[in-house]
Amino acid sequence: MEPMKKTALIMAGGRGERFWPKSRQNLPKQFLSLTDDGKTMIQLTVERILPLVDIQDIYIATNRAYKALVREQLPGLPEENILCEPVGRNTAPCVGLGAVHMQKKYGDAVMMVLASDHLIKYTSIFQATLNDACEVAQAGENLVTMGITPDTPETGYGYIKFLPDRARGHALKVECFVEKPDLETAKEYLASEQYLWNSGMFIWKVSTILDNIARYLPDTYAGLERIQAAIGTPDEEAVLEKEFTAFRSESIDYGVMEKAEDIYTLAGSFGWDDVGSWLAVERIKSSNEFNNVLEGNVVTVETQSTIIQGRDKLIAAVGLEDMIIVDTDDALLVCDKSHAADIKKVLELLRISDRTQYL
Amino acid sequence: MEPMKKTALIMAGGRGERFWPKSRQNLPKQFLSLTDDGKTMIQLTVERILPLVDIQDIYIATNRAYKALVREQLPGLPEENILCEPVGRNTAPCVGLGAVHMQKKYGDAVMMVLASDHLIKYTSIFQATLNDACEVAQAGENLVTMGITPDTPETGYGYIKFLPDRARGHALKVECFVEKPDLETAKEYLASEQYLWNSGMFIWKVSTILDNIARYLPDTYAGLERIQAAIGTPDEEAVLEKEFTAFRSESIDYGVMEKAEDIYTLAGSFGWDDVGSWLAVERIKSSNEFNNVLEGNVVTVETQSTIIQGRDKLIAAVGLEDMIIVDTDDALLVCDKSHAADIKKVLELLRISDRTQYL
Repeated sequence: MEPMKKTALIMAGGRGERFWPKSRQNLPKQFLSLTDDGKTMIQLTVERILPLVDIQDIYIATNRAYKALVREQLPGLPEENILCEPVGRNTAPCVGLGAVHMQKKYGDAVMMVLASDHLIKYTSIFQATLNDACEVAQAGENLVTMGITPDTPETGYGYIKFLPDRARGHALKVECFVEKPDLETAKEYLASEQYLWNSGMFIWKVSTILDNIARYLPDTYAGLERIQAAIGTPDEEAVLEKEFTAFRSESIDYGVMEKAEDIYTLAGSFGWDDVGSWLAVERIKSSNEFNNVLEGNVVTVETQSTIIQGRDKLIAAVGLEDMIIVDTDDALLVCDKSHAADIKKVLELLRISDRTQYL
Repeated sequence: MEPMKKTALIMAGGRGERFWPKSRQNLPKQFLSLTDDGKTMIQLTVERILPLVDIQDIYIATNRAYKALVREQLPGLPEENILCEPVGRNTAPCVGLGAVHMQKKYGDAVMMVLASDHLIKYTSIFQATLNDACEVAQAGENLVTMGITPDTPETGYGYIKFLPDRARGHALKVECFVEKPDLETAKEYLASEQYLWNSGMFIWKVSTILDNIARYLPDTYAGLERIQAAIGTPDEEAVLEKEFTAFRSESIDYGVMEKAEDIYTLAGSFGWDDVGSWLAVERIKSSNEFNNVLEGNVVTVETQSTIIQGRDKLIAAVGLEDMIIVDTDDALLVCDKSHAADIKKVLELLRISDRTQYL
């Protein structure tokens, strides 16, 4: 079978509040460098798939506010491949927008849908898995999702239940998707060996996903058809604005995947990390003999298992354990690790106290 | 008995490292404001004794580096009352220097020796006690020390043991001075009701303390005589430099008080606080309903019993308990309260890593 053209849609509209104060409304996580190599998350995402997809065939879905950041960080990408959503409507309209652009240009293609703010440690394993996924997607009207072999009873992810006896090569038939579980349930999932984490990465033909959107989200599909018809016309912007704004906010998981048939998953074991909070920095960066991950002009005394992200300003940490300290020009975060999820409460307080310049 | 002229020597040469990073080598604790009224410690010290002593009769002993700060913060004080020690030689030479200046000017006087970086809550009780002390000092060749009625088994202070049956009015005869005790001993002292804290505040006639220095520290006394002879001459600076540098470093407690006879103490109960570390801020400043003492542009989430001293920069505290956060332009301290005494280790590390600009 002759391989089809491969394309990628990288979703880069997220706000990444959990990396405040380094991430801000005007500089979300995907545009930050959180690794030692100095490359930003979106740069790494593109770099990772270049052996499989031409840069000309990579699309970035983001919002208008970030277009300049995308151009700056990905100078080799054609400007017309930056798809700006007028408003955020979750992932289903986003995927649909990418698909109608690709259909217009290529007729059909195998389309990868990727997050812009995840990290993957073993790039070559990832690429091989992605290649397998493309073959499965091309071979039929299959929706393919990248599952991640779990190693902990994680409560922060959705799970994919697969049918072990219905494999097609490396691809496993999906029985169902399940929401984020509580800890007890997550432990059962882990023990059962029939569940994978849902990474939010998908592979399908453009035609397949559009058929599924037409079936399960017909109103959205109708709007997408009108958007597609306007591409390249003087009305393109106005139609996009009107139709996209009218879309119901819907995730591709809930809107399509949980309802669709013929879903396959590939069990990825390539060191995937969704970098969901400051705690991830410990997994990404090297720590010293006291289990501290330090960056910047730092002095520590009797301090262990602490993450400090500073710059030129001197930061002295004394008697700390399991803390997160992030210093920027105008804002400082000091957070106990067990409360990393409460950072979003800081942003709420800043909103209601009208200190929006820090968001 | 006609009251003698009253004078005061305020010792202001200390470095106050325990308030780093707000205190620095070029801005020690006595020149900081740590209270809500915005006045600095030394300004409060002077203000507190003005009903008893004319500003013309108040002397500040400090080192040259701080002369400009003293003039700026105490503009009403005669410049010649700022006595600059060429080097720090602990409190005995410092007291002696003040005494020879006062002897030269006044012949004799009742001299109070006070710290510049303590706080006192009940000013009127303090003034009444100080007045009593002056009367005891004037009545004979008595050395008078201000004791503080203890309310906790404090291990950070020296103690004064008094003889309850040898009182002279409010003044109690001192049996001996004892060094900082361990916790067990401190508990015994507290239970015995025969010990007071040694506050480091003294009252005596100029003639009495000089007689005692002559007796117990004869070399220092000889140098002080040469310094006194040179006051007002063109050689004043050179003689001071030569003699003071040659002095042995000696505290007035160890060099004189522990050896001398006829020492009386007055038991002060005027809300004395030596403001020995950042922990004192909780006693000085008002706390909110979560027992936090907050200053600056602060947001807290799930945070209690924490001290935050910030300024314009936003500080977000999340999930903290019993922490100290002090932010300045070029340095930030994040310290667990139980490790407040380890702040000096930060300064050592800065010294050996040649980051002396932060000291």
